[in-house]
Parts: sequence; C-alpha cells; structure tokens
Amino acid sequence: MFSNSTVKKSGKKYIYSFDEGDKSMKDLLGGKGANLSEMTKIGIPVPFGFTISTELCRYFLDNKGYPDSFAEQLEDNLSLLEIRMGKKFGDTKNPLLVSVRSGAAASMPGMMDTILNLGLNDDTVTGLIEKTGNERFAYDSYRRFVQMFGNVVMDVDHEHFEDVLEKMKENKGVSLDTELDANDLKRLVTEYKLVVKEHAKEDFPESPYHQLKLAIEAVFNSWDNERAIVYRRLNNITGLKGTAVNVQSMVFGNMGDDSGTGVAFTRNPSTGAKEFYGEFLMNAQGEDVVAGIRTPVTISELEKVNKSVYDELVEAKNKLETHYKNMQDIEFTIEKGKLFLLQTRNGKRTAAAALKIAVDMVEEGLLTKQEALLQIDAKSLNQMLHPQIKKTATRTVVAKGLPASPGAACGKVVFTAEDAVEWVTERGETVILVRKETSPEDISGMHISQGILTSRGGMTSHAAVVCRGMGKCCVAGCNDIMVNAKEKKITIGDLVINEGDIITLDGGTGEVMMGEMEMQEPDLSGDFKAVMDWADEFRHLKVRTNADSPEDCRVAIDFGAEGIGLCRTEHMFFDEERIPLVRKMIMSKDATERAPYLEKLQEFQKKDFEGIFKVMGSRPVTVRLLDPPLHEFLPEDEAQIKQLAEEMGMPEKNLHAVIDNLHEINPMLGHRGCRLGITYPDIYEMQVRAIAEAAMHVSVGDIRVDVEIEIPLVGEVTELKYLRGVVSKVLDEYEGRINFDYKIGTMIEIPRACVTADEIAEAADFMSFGTNDLTQLTFGYSRDDIGKFMQIYLDKGILEQDPMGSIDEKGVGKLMDVCVKLARTTKKGIEIGICGEQGGDPQSVEFCHKIGLDYVSCSPYRVPIAKLAAAQAKLKSL
Amino acid sequence: MFSNSTVKKSGKKYIYSFDEGDKSMKDLLGGKGANLSEMTKIGIPVPFGFTISTELCRYFLDNKGYPDSFAEQLEDNLSLLEIRMGKKFGDTKNPLLVSVRSGAAASMPGMMDTILNLGLNDDTVTGLIEKTGNERFAYDSYRRFVQMFGNVVMDVDHEHFEDVLEKMKENKGVSLDTELDANDLKRLVTEYKLVVKEHAKEDFPESPYHQLKLAIEAVFNSWDNERAIVYRRLNNITGLKGTAVNVQSMVFGNMGDDSGTGVAFTRNPSTGAKEFYGEFLMNAQGEDVVAGIRTPVTISELEKVNKSVYDELVEAKNKLETHYKNMQDIEFTIEKGKLFLLQTRNGKRTAAAALKIAVDMVEEGLLTKQEALLQIDAKSLNQMLHPQIKKTATRTVVAKGLPASPGAACGKVVFTAEDAVEWVTERGETVILVRKETSPEDISGMHISQGILTSRGGMTSHAAVVCRGMGKCCVAGCNDIMVNAKEKKITIGDLVINEGDIITLDGGTGEVMMGEMEMQEPDLSGDFKAVMDWADEFRHLKVRTNADSPEDCRVAIDFGAEGIGLCRTEHMFFDEERIPLVRKMIMSKDATERAPYLEKLQEFQKKDFEGIFKVMGSRPVTVRLLDPPLHEFLPEDEAQIKQLAEEMGMPEKNLHAVIDNLHEINPMLGHRGCRLGITYPDIYEMQVRAIAEAAMHVSVGDIRVDVEIEIPLVGEVTELKYLRGVVSKVLDEYEGRINFDYKIGTMIEIPRACVTADEIAEAADFMSFGTNDLTQLTFGYSRDDIGKFMQIYLDKGILEQDPMGSIDEKGVGKLMDVCVKLARTTKKGIEIGICGEQGGDPQSVEFCHKIGLDYVSCSPYRVPIAKLAAAQAKLKSL
Repeated sequence: MFSNSTVKKSGKKYIYSFDEGDKSMKDLLGGKGANLSEMTKIGIPVPFGFTISTELCRYFLDNKGYPDSFAEQLEDNLSLLEIRMGKKFGDTKNPLLVSVRSGAAASMPGMMDTILNLGLNDDTVTGLIEKTGNERFAYDSYRRFVQMFGNVVMDVDHEHFEDVLEKMKENKGVSLDTELDANDLKRLVTEYKLVVKEHAKEDFPESPYHQLKLAIEAVFNSWDNERAIVYRRLNNITGLKGTAVNVQSMVFGNMGDDSGTGVAFTRNPSTGAKEFYGEFLMNAQGEDVVAGIRTPVTISELEKVNKSVYDELVEAKNKLETHYKNMQDIEFTIEKGKLFLLQTRNGKRTAAAALKIAVDMVEEGLLTKQEALLQIDAKSLNQMLHPQIKKTATRTVVAKGLPASPGAACGKVVFTAEDAVEWVTERGETVILVRKETSPEDISGMHISQGILTSRGGMTSHAAVVCRGMGKCCVAGCNDIMVNAKEKKITIGDLVINEGDIITLDGGTGEVMMGEMEMQEPDLSGDFKAVMDWADEFRHLKVRTNADSPEDCRVAIDFGAEGIGLCRTEHMFFDEERIPLVRKMIMSKDATERAPYLEKLQEFQKKDFEGIFKVMGSRPVTVRLLDPPLHEFLPEDEAQIKQLAEEMGMPEKNLHAVIDNLHEINPMLGHRGCRLGITYPDIYEMQVRAIAEAAMHVSVGDIRVDVEIEIPLVGEVTELKYLRGVVSKVLDEYEGRINFDYKIGTMIEIPRACVTADEIAEAADFMSFGTNDLTQLTFGYSRDDIGKFMQIYLDKGILEQDPMGSIDEKGVGKLMDVCVKLARTTKKGIEIGICGEQGGDPQSVEFCHKIGLDYVSCSPYRVPIAKLAAAQAKLKSL
Repeated sequence: MFSNSTVKKSGKKYIYSFDEGDKSMKDLLGGKGANLSEMTKIGIPVPFGFTISTELCRYFLDNKGYPDSFAEQLEDNLSLLEIRMGKKFGDTKNPLLVSVRSGAAASMPGMMDTILNLGLNDDTVTGLIEKTGNERFAYDSYRRFVQMFGNVVMDVDHEHFEDVLEKMKENKGVSLDTELDANDLKRLVTEYKLVVKEHAKEDFPESPYHQLKLAIEAVFNSWDNERAIVYRRLNNITGLKGTAVNVQSMVFGNMGDDSGTGVAFTRNPSTGAKEFYGEFLMNAQGEDVVAGIRTPVTISELEKVNKSVYDELVEAKNKLETHYKNMQDIEFTIEKGKLFLLQTRNGKRTAAAALKIAVDMVEEGLLTKQEALLQIDAKSLNQMLHPQIKKTATRTVVAKGLPASPGAACGKVVFTAEDAVEWVTERGETVILVRKETSPEDISGMHISQGILTSRGGMTSHAAVVCRGMGKCCVAGCNDIMVNAKEKKITIGDLVINEGDIITLDGGTGEVMMGEMEMQEPDLSGDFKAVMDWADEFRHLKVRTNADSPEDCRVAIDFGAEGIGLCRTEHMFFDEERIPLVRKMIMSKDATERAPYLEKLQEFQKKDFEGIFKVMGSRPVTVRLLDPPLHEFLPEDEAQIKQLAEEMGMPEKNLHAVIDNLHEINPMLGHRGCRLGITYPDIYEMQVRAIAEAAMHVSVGDIRVDVEIEIPLVGEVTELKYLRGVVSKVLDEYEGRINFDYKIGTMIEIPRACVTADEIAEAADFMSFGTNDLTQLTFGYSRDDIGKFMQIYLDKGILEQDPMGSIDEKGVGKLMDVCVKLARTTKKGIEIGICGEQGGDPQSVEFCHKIGLDYVSCSPYRVPIAKLAAAQAKLKSL
C-alpha cells in the first residue's frame, strides 16, 4: 500500500513506538510525539502508540510518495501496538481503534488536523459494541469518525453533516445530540456516508488500512495548508521539516458518566499562581472541551466526581512539571474510571504569568535564574508594558465574559476577520473583532485587531489560547452578548452595538465597556523587576533607547535604558514656533541669508539638548544630525503655501518654484542625510554648536555629558571625513572649555557602507546600524510603497515575514556581519550598535548579540523586551 | 632650509639625477622625469638635471614639511648639476639657471605649473649678460622669470604684469614686446618686482635657493589645486601619490635667431599618417608655442632654417619612437644652433590616428598585435562611432580654422566656460564653446560642450590637445572670426553670430557653418575593421547589446554585437496603438477583465519579438519581462486623463482615484519588476506566450532562436522560483512544439540578490548584472535626484567620479564579485553578464573581465569600444 512493488530494505527508521523516543527528539517526532514518548518513559499513563517522523513528511511532500522501507515499518509497529493493546486493527471481535494526530516541532494550536476513532467500519463497529456493551456509544463514535474523516480527509464541508443531523433531530422532535438513541446514530452513519459519497464523489473507505493511509496523508498535506502557513508566518516559525503523525490507541471519554476528558495547566496561565488550573467535561471527547461548544467545568470539581482519578491526575501533573521544569499544558481522558494522559507540552502563558512562574520556580529551587530567564517569551512582555485602563476611570460595563487574555484594548467593532483586515489595512482604523467563537480561519483578522471578544468558549477556547500566545487582549465566553454577524450588530438586552461603534475590553477582568476608556501605565515592580535584574546580571548587550524628547528619555530610563542610541534632531524642527524659521532658512539663497535663521534655531536646539542631557546625565546620548530632505519641512497645501509666501514677502509663484525645485522623484534616495550636511555645512555646524553649548552647560559636578555626534547616510568614507572636519572645526571653537565627552561617528544604513566599513571605520569613533533604511536599500523596498505587494508576498509564501519586522539575517544580516568584521579589522574595539526599530525585536536582538554588537537601541516601551532578549541571547550562546 | 636643525641621515632616496632613473620609474619620477632619465640613458641630448620624487610630494603634502635627509640630497644634486654644467647656482659670473616643472605619473597637460629661468636675480643677471653677451636676452629672461614666478608661486594675477607692460609700450609708442630694448626690460624687472610686493605683500625673493624652495613647494601644492583635481576627475586618474618635480638646467630658445623652440609628434596625431608633424618658433621660449599666442611654423620649415639641427631632430624622434614603441610627443629647444630635447611622452591622438598608427606599426614590425591593441584608447573610439556631417549636405561655410580634433558638432554658441556649464546643466541645451583661446580654467566648460572653436592657437594649442584627449570636435586658430566675449558675439566681416545662435563645426576640415547640418554614419572598414578583428581574436568576454527594436539590433550587429544582453519589453508598450490597451489592462479589476487586453497586447508583442529574433537569428537574446511600475503607463496631464476616462466610459474621478492609488512615494523602490510579475502573473504569462510563439515561428531551417527569459528585480530566491514556475507552466503549453532554445534567469540589481546569489543560482539558468539599479541601491542614490548634490560631491572631492559612469569597484564591484563567487559555488558554469550602461565603459569592462563575467552588453554604439576594452582587459591580465 505504501511501497513500490519491489520492496527494498533501507536503513532509515521512519517510525518510533512510544517506548523508543524521548523529549530530545522533537525535531524528528514533533513536540507531541516526543512528549508522548517521554511521558511513557517516566511512567505516566499514556495510551500506547507510535510516531511517524517529520522526515517522512518531508519525503512525502517532496516525492509525492513513500520510501520503500516504510510499508514494512508501519506493519511492524501496528503489530506491536496490537500486541500491547491486546486488540487487532480491523478485527470484528476486538477491534483496535486509533487516533491520528499531527504534531510538529513547534506548537501550532488548532492549525493541524486530528482524526479520532479510526479503524471503525460496519464490521468493526460490532466488535466495539461487543467489547463495550454500549451500542449507542459505538455508533456515536462511528458517526463522529465518519464526520471527522469526511471533513478532514475527504474535504466535505461540516455543514452537510450538520444539515443531516439537524433534520434527524427535527424529525424526532429533539434538540440535543444526546437525545438520539443507538438506532438514530446508526442511521446517521449510513446517511453520513451518503453525504460523503455525494460531495467527495467517492465511497467512504471501509478498510481500516486504507483509512489510515488517507489519514496520514491528510495530516502531511495539512502542513502546507494556508492556515498552517499563515500561523507559521505570524509566529516566525521557520526551518522545520514538516509535521510528525502520532498514531495512538483510542481511549474514550464518551463511554458514559464514568468517563470524561479535560485540559489543564499545572499553574494558572493567566496569573502564574501556583494552582492546578483547568477544565473538564464528563462523557465527552477531547474536541468538545477545546472547541468551546459546551462550557466545561473547573478542574477542582473533578475531586468531587472521582477523587482517586483526581489524585492520580494531580500526581501526574506534579511529576510532569518537575520533570519538564516548566509549567505544563496537559490533556487527559478518563475511560471508565481509568486516567490516561494524551498530551503534555509547555503551557502558553501571559507575560505576567510567565514572570511570576519564573520567579516562583527559582524560589522553589526548580529552576536556576538562567533557566527561568530562558522560559520567558521576551516579546510577550509587550503585554505588560502598554497602558491598562486607568484605575480611576468610570467603567460603563455593558457585559462581562471570561478574562481570557489580559491587557486592555479599544477599537471599532467588526464582525469578520476579513473586515478586520480591511478596516485596518485600508482605512487605518483600530478594531475589536467580535465573533461567536473564533476558528483558525480567523487568525489573520485576530492578529490585526486590538482585541477579541467572543460570546462562546472557555478559557481554553481557540480565541483564548491564540490571544494569550499573541499577547493580545481577549474577553471570551461572554454569554451576555448576542452576536449577529449577518446584520453586523451585538445586542445586550435592549442595547445595540453596531459595526463601527467603539468599545473597550479589559482582558484582565473580562469586562466590556462602551466607548474609549482612559488608560494608565502598568506597574513594573515585583516579579517584573526581579526578572529585569536577572537579565541585567547576564546580558552582554547594552540597551539604549530611541528618544527625541526629555519626556521619552524619562520613560526609557524608568524602563532601564542605559543611554540614547538615536536622538533624531529633525523632530525638533517641526515645533510650531520653529517651523517658520526652518522654512525661511530653506528659502534662503545662500549661507549668508541662512545665518540669522540658523542662529535662532540654534538657541532652540540648545534648549532641546539641554533638556535631554539633563535627564540622561552621564549616560551616552547619540545625536543624529539632520537627516530628512528639506522638502519635508515645506508646506504642502495651498493655504499654508500662501501664508508662508506672505510671511516671506515673496510671490506665491516663487515659493511654488522653490518647492517644485526641491521635489524629488525618490526622496528616500535623494538629497538627505550627510548629503545635506555636505551641501549645507552651516546647518550641521549650527547643530554641533547647539550640542556643544548644551553639553557644556549641563556638565556640572559629577555630571559629564557623553555625546555621540552621528552623521547619517554615509556610503563613502570621504563623506564622513569631510563632515568630521566640519564637526571638529566647530568643536575647536570651544577649545579649553570642553568639559564633556564626545565621539564622532556614523549611522550604517547604506549597503555600500557595509562593504566598505574598513575604510569608514578609519574616520568613525562609533557606528550604529540604521536597519530601517538598510533593510529598504538591501531589498530595494520603500516602506511607504510595499503595501501594494507585501500582503501578496506573504500570502504566496514568497517571504516568510515582512523584513521590516525582524532583521533579515540572510541578506541584511549578512551585510551587517560583513560590516562588523571589516570595521574591526581597521579599529579593533570600535563601538557598534543598532538603532532601527528591529533593536527591540527579540529575534533581532539575538542576531545582534551573535555578530558582536555592543548595544541595541529601541523605543522606550521595548527596552525591557530588549534587555530580556539580550540576556537570553547571551545564555543561549553559552 | 629644507630640514630641522638636527639633520639625521635617512636611507630613503628622494632625488634622482637624470642618469640614475629610467622609464620604468614613472610612479616615482613621474612620466616627464622618467622619460628625461630614459632619454639621457639612450643618448638623446637632454639638458641635465634631476627629479624630486612623487614620494617627497606625498610626504610634503601630508606633513607640511620635509624629511630630514632631503636638504642634503638636494645639495648633493645641485652640486652634481653645477659640475656637469660647469656653472654655479647663484654665481654672479657664470650662473646656473634652471627650469622647475611638475610631472606626475599620468599626463595632465597644462594642469600643473612650470617656472623657467629660475636662479636669476639682480646679481646673477649680470653673469648671464657676461656669458651670453646679450643684455636684452638676459633682461627679457629675467622679466619673464619675475612674472612667471610672481604669478605661479606668489599668486599675483597676470593682468597686473600685463598692465605695466602695456603702459610701457604705450609710453614708448610701440606695439610688440620685441620692440622693447634691454633698458626697457630692465626697468620692467624693477616694476614687476613692485607689482609683486604690492599684491603679494612680500618682496620678490632674491636668493636662488629660496626661489628654488618656493618653486618646488608651488609645484607640490599645485597637485591639489582645483584644476588638477577636475582634470584627474574627468580623466579618471586615481591612486597616484602626487607629482614629481624636475629641476633641469635651462636652455634658451630665445637667445636670438639661431635659437628656437618647438613641439612635434613622430606621426600625425590627427590622421595617424606616418609623417613628422609639429610646429616651432625661432627666438622663443617653449611656452610661446603651446600657449598659442604666436602662431607657429610647421616643422618641415625647420629644414630650411637649420638643416643639421633638423636632421638631428628627425634622428632623435625616430630613435624615440622605436625605443618607446609608441608615437611620441616631443618638446625641443635650439640654443644657439644646438638641439636639446626637453620632453618626450606618448602622444595623444584621435581615434582614427590611433587605429592607423596601430595598424601601421604592426605592419612595420614595430609592434605585435597585442601591443598595438593596448595602445588604443578604447573610449576614444567613440569619436568614430558617432555621425559626421552628411557628405551630401550643402555646407554654408562662414569661416575656416585648423582641423584640430575631428568629428562634427552642432550647438548654440556660448562664450564662457561658466555659461557652457549653466546652459547645459540647467537649461538642457547643447552648446559650442567659442573662445579666443582656451586655458586650463576652461576644462569643465570644454568637457560639457559639443565642440570648441578658438580664434587663436595652433594644432598643439591647449584647445587642440585637450579636445583630442577628450575625443571632442575642435576647430582652432580660426583667424577669420573676431571673438567678442564681453558683448557675447562673433563677427566675421559683416556677419554677426550672437550667443545662442546655432553653428556646426567640422573638426576634420576646420570648417565653421551656420545652423544645424545633417549628419551621417561613419565608415567602419579599413583600420577600424582590422583592429576589431584583432580584438575579437584576443578577448575572452563576449559583447552583446542592449536593444529593443529590430533597427537597433541591426546597427548593433553591424558594430559586431554577438547577441542581445537586454531587450526591454516595456518600450514596446508605449506605442501609440498599444498604450490604450495597456491602460485598459491596468484599469481592469482582475485577471478576467485584463484577459482580452492582454490577448491583444500578446499579438503586438509577438510581432515585436519576431522582428528582433529575425535580425538576431541564432544569437542569444535576453528578454526582460515587464519591469517599470504600472503608473508609468498612465497619462499625467488632465486632457489625456479626461480622454482616457471617456474611452473607458468611466467618471474622470474614478480614473483619478486609480492613478492616485498607483502613485508611489519612491517608485524606484516600489511595485515593479518581479513584484509586478508575482502580483499579476497573467502579464508575464502573456509575455512568455508572445516570446514562445515568436521564437517557434522564426526558428526555421538553420535558425534556432536562443532566448533567455529574464526576471527583473529579484532579491530573494523564492521570487525567482515562483516566476520560474509561471514561465515554465506557459512553456509547457507548447510541449512537443518547442523548436528553440531557452533559459530562465534573472537580473541582479538588488544588493540582497548579490549576497544571496548562492540561493538564487539554484533557480537561475543565467544572471545579468543590472548595474544601473544595483549602483543606485548600493549607494542609496536615485539617478533622477542626485543632480542636487552630485556636482558638489565632485567639486569637493567627496567622490572622484559619478558612480553611474564606471563601476564603483570598492562598493558595487565588491557586491558583484561576491555574487559571482557565491553563484558559482552553487552552479559552477552559470552564465553571468552585465547589461547596465557601464557595460560599454572600458574601465568597467576590465573589471567585468577580472571578476569572471561571460559577457558585457551595452548600447549599439558602444559595442566596438566594449570589444576593444575586452581584448585589452584580457591582454592586461596575461
């Protein structure tokens, strides 16, 4: 079945039974498979089975077929499973039923497909009845199997099955599935098979072996379905071979009231509290809990239902947490009073929970500080660093759901993922996605929304799990609301909320409020501080911030910034008081005419720098001299042009001529950066004078200002040499009075600068990667224009992620690496940092550590993320 | 004088007497110095002297002073010179006078400064009178020296001296310098010294040693004067240490009628004819001939004046040409009937002359073909490849001058170099620069003009020499015309030509014509063909052309193109018949709406390709799929927008909305190239269908079309893989009918493509560097916008040349080299070419050869240049 006619023996092992693997084999067996083996190894009760490796998935996808040895390996493993379970696959007396599940090396909840009860057909079902003595259960399992298999493997839409089911219930005059008896369910199986035949144009496969083959292939193929691709893209999952397939003997949570199923976390994934946390449903299969269709019961209730099973479960979860040294997310099934664990994995958690768990586990002696640091998702800290709803704000709560993922969110209500994407990308709105329940198809829409509100589902529903992973606010299972997606409205009693109305969610309390609420800063003491202190202890990279105002500097210092990596001076030019001076300066014919305006601007700039230096004290401050093209400072609309012309006493026509003359076809590649400094040295001279005078003024007592004067957009060392001369000449004017430290260096943002960094280093005291521009030039993209094709690129898998998000290591990163190496051949200890937005992205921080940078600089709110990521990078490299 | 107080002996030799050097020491002694030594060595009569090395110049410019050992070396060499000449420097009885001349490793005519008669003062002049018995000569030399030294070393403007001289002549009532007697000249010396004192605020130096010191330093400093920098820039002269200084005993061409001076070429530098070619003036110093102030006599006349000197000169020039195996440009002086050669160097020549000389010298057995090829300036071929005045055109000749540099030129008359620059760069005019005579200050203006017309000066005047070097048309010494630069007009008898009037020059006949003449193609047989055949014999690089039409293809094949390296398909879209279809295609909502327009466009494209394939036969043709952003095809002005809206039956407003939506902030970095192909695969599919059907149609009999389908703007291999799939799928439609050869490859024009070329090569059958875009992205420049700063960059020496002209080897070249190496690690023999405009630039061609490209592709008119450059690159590398 799986082989060519001539079977050749091959040495390659493609299947591992659960007693052959262990948790280190994640790449080969997937996370689920490796953990099933590991659990088996440490004596946790796991239904026996085997795992087909990710290598086979890759082989299958590449070759559209199987290697010769596979058929024999599968037969051997099925035989072993039959022996261990004392059942036979396809047997009419004592049939072995299996589940078939996907499982890649990285967790992808809900993305891949699962089939339960495989092995059932019209013959084996009689065996199942015989063994269990429960005809209703057997046909319930059978009809579930036909539906699941028909849907997942044979691509028949769920609704076709639901229609048949609804019709049957209608005819019978009942409303619940449980009100159907064995005969009804038996008839349902027959009707379901007709549904399959009609829509799939094929008979439902009766042979259990054929079922297994089709199921395995469906899992493999689902690796490349669009949802999986999108999930991998959004979560930056790259470099995997494929998914493994776990074939496991079935246990049944739906065998009656002594059976059940549940999911649980070893600690509270929302707060981190050390408490057993989870939900279960009696007489149900696993999918019922996760899908959020029935609202499950809290785990502690299990003690009342079956104390010995509960105790056994608590023991197992403790064993697992201690063994994995990490908070675990487990799935279990109780079959006729016997406990089985079906899965364990490291549990997703909120940032607050991650911090608390880390601190607690270190205190408990379970983890070292280093291990604890590595368990925290640096990106998730983002949740804690953004404002919450202000404590003093009056809350007009209109509904309350489950606090499924913390943080606060505010936006306009939309009802479909497509609308969410459209409203945000095309209209620039911020939105809250409101759904009855979410499904994997909604991922893109969820990602782009500020927060998610659902009317159904529990704390482990799809919406809740995905949002916690994304660090996005979610209120789930909000039964108070009626979601009418067709008419695009929510009704809460008499209250109607329409599409486009603004609501606010509090994911920490589950409250839904009308309108936009005032927000407040988060508390950064306690666990947060403890973890930050550990990060400071271990990291090598310094962390600076990008800030242009004393206020931003203050925030950044509170977040632990160690200096400014990028202070953009152009922002200071836009102030209402100054922009007229800037414009007059630009309109001037020559340096003489510019002089009086520059003199006035110098006073303003001096004050700006004084404010910043005062906050930063002796910490290093990198000041970038003027960068944008001059036309950015000129008015664009007619009224403003007219006004400026009047102020300058010049005909409007002439002003238009100046503006036209400054117009550029590709401003990003035009007259900006050091090119401005070279053509108008007097502008840079003014800025350097303002810096020097401010620094002299602030440097008093213990304070010794440490300024790094940065020349932007250098592509050729002569540019830097020339402007270094201009800067030095100004500083020479203050000879004998310089009471501050300074360096003169450059931003590296032009590909040519990277490949000639050995020369550039000759004239630079420091370098700082401007990865925004460097990425744009290396790819030939303009950030302003990629909107036209980037989404298509991501959808078609041309790019795995927008290169503006994380450093593109293959291209941009290669140039950065070349730059660092070349620069240090000329000047061994030259300080090199990064100041693009990517400086706050954990993946990029790790790369920066790898290539030997001295610091990263990012926006104030990302400083803690960068610090943690820096520590993790160092620890990983050890 | 040249040392610190404590003299330390150092091993470094900074001065070489003329019997110590040879022609191989050009880098150290400069071209002039090395040749003076070489001439001395082979027994040519050269006034003895010594050369101060370029290394000292570098030391002096870097340290603003001299190394310790220099003073002693200078004394030693002066002593030696005194002994050899039997004269003493500064002696009042028998004074040694010297010339001090610059001389760098590369020839820079007129750029560097020269001082003659150095060593004269009020004391030594009496010695000179005593020795020569010619008081008038002595004071004439003395006043020339004071003026030259005052001007060159002490920076006193010429006009101040001229004013004094004019006043004196006026007072005496004479008009010629020669009418002044010894006493007048003596008084002139005194007055000239007062002029110096007044303007330089310093006394004229009396001490010969001090004069020598100042003169040497003036030469050194002139290395970095603006004219020298501009000349080096225009001629791409880089990497030199500085200039050498030649100190040579004076010989006098102005000692009376038995003395004289001249310049000559061993062959005719204009036609290449094997004839002794030059000019001389009796009783004159060298500067008089070159400066063009007196019109000199043709060299053959010298035989009548002094046969023995003439014979000696002919013998010397023959010896020099044979010795140097190259046409020589020599300077000579006759002092009281004795011949001295002052200089020899390889003579500049027109392209026609270069070809004839090369062919003749190979026939004469003087050169091998390889040596001959290396003597031709590939760039100069440009002169021969551009149209001449049509033979049948009626010439309304209004004046005739010397045919100083061949080719024809037509443009508006301007009278100053500044006007030439302004009219061309700011108004976009083409101009003819008209001057009485040109001077080094005019270089920039000459470079930018179509041609030069002067009223004075001979075939070796500044204008003539420089124009031949530049390959620019020049009519010199046109005595018929009166140039009035102040009133900006030329008068020729009654005819007045005003600024802005159009004239045509024929540099091959010396004719000046009114208005614009019809031009014709040049003759490419004879010497041209012979040299091209040699080039074909030796070169490794193939030479293709960039052509988009059958006509261009035909021209290119006539010039010897071996294929098309770049056929841009977008040009075909702009045709009047097609652009409406293109626009409708762009306005379509989706692929279904686009389909009918694409179908019609396909018919057009098919015809285009058929036309091209028919001309190209089995030669390779690289067709680039659509590259520019779609908005380039939409109308810009309101009338056209209105018309299109009507044609499409849509409201103007909607059309405006589409145009606005397609607008890009940085179109160069936007939705174009393969990004278009990926978002609109149907456009590329249409183009591939047109290519395939055209190729199938043309491939008949011996003709097998060889098409290379090129995907533009690839930065990531997945882009290429995706579009390779699109292209292949279309070609699969013709399975079994494909009777042509094809490859699928990509243009390399994105920096990221270079650093990931190993991956890209996996999906590419060929690569071709698009160095226009690659240069723009590597530098972060937009060719459309660099105008705002490039001139300032060149003027300030930030860049030595516009990087769009020749490949920037340090930056862009490094990326190209990396690309070639990476690509060939994946695919050893992958074909790699270049198709930017730089593919026709000799320096770039040499670089392409070095990094191992397979071919260069350039515009049809540059094909012969590229072929010659390719052969030279190969020969140089051997």
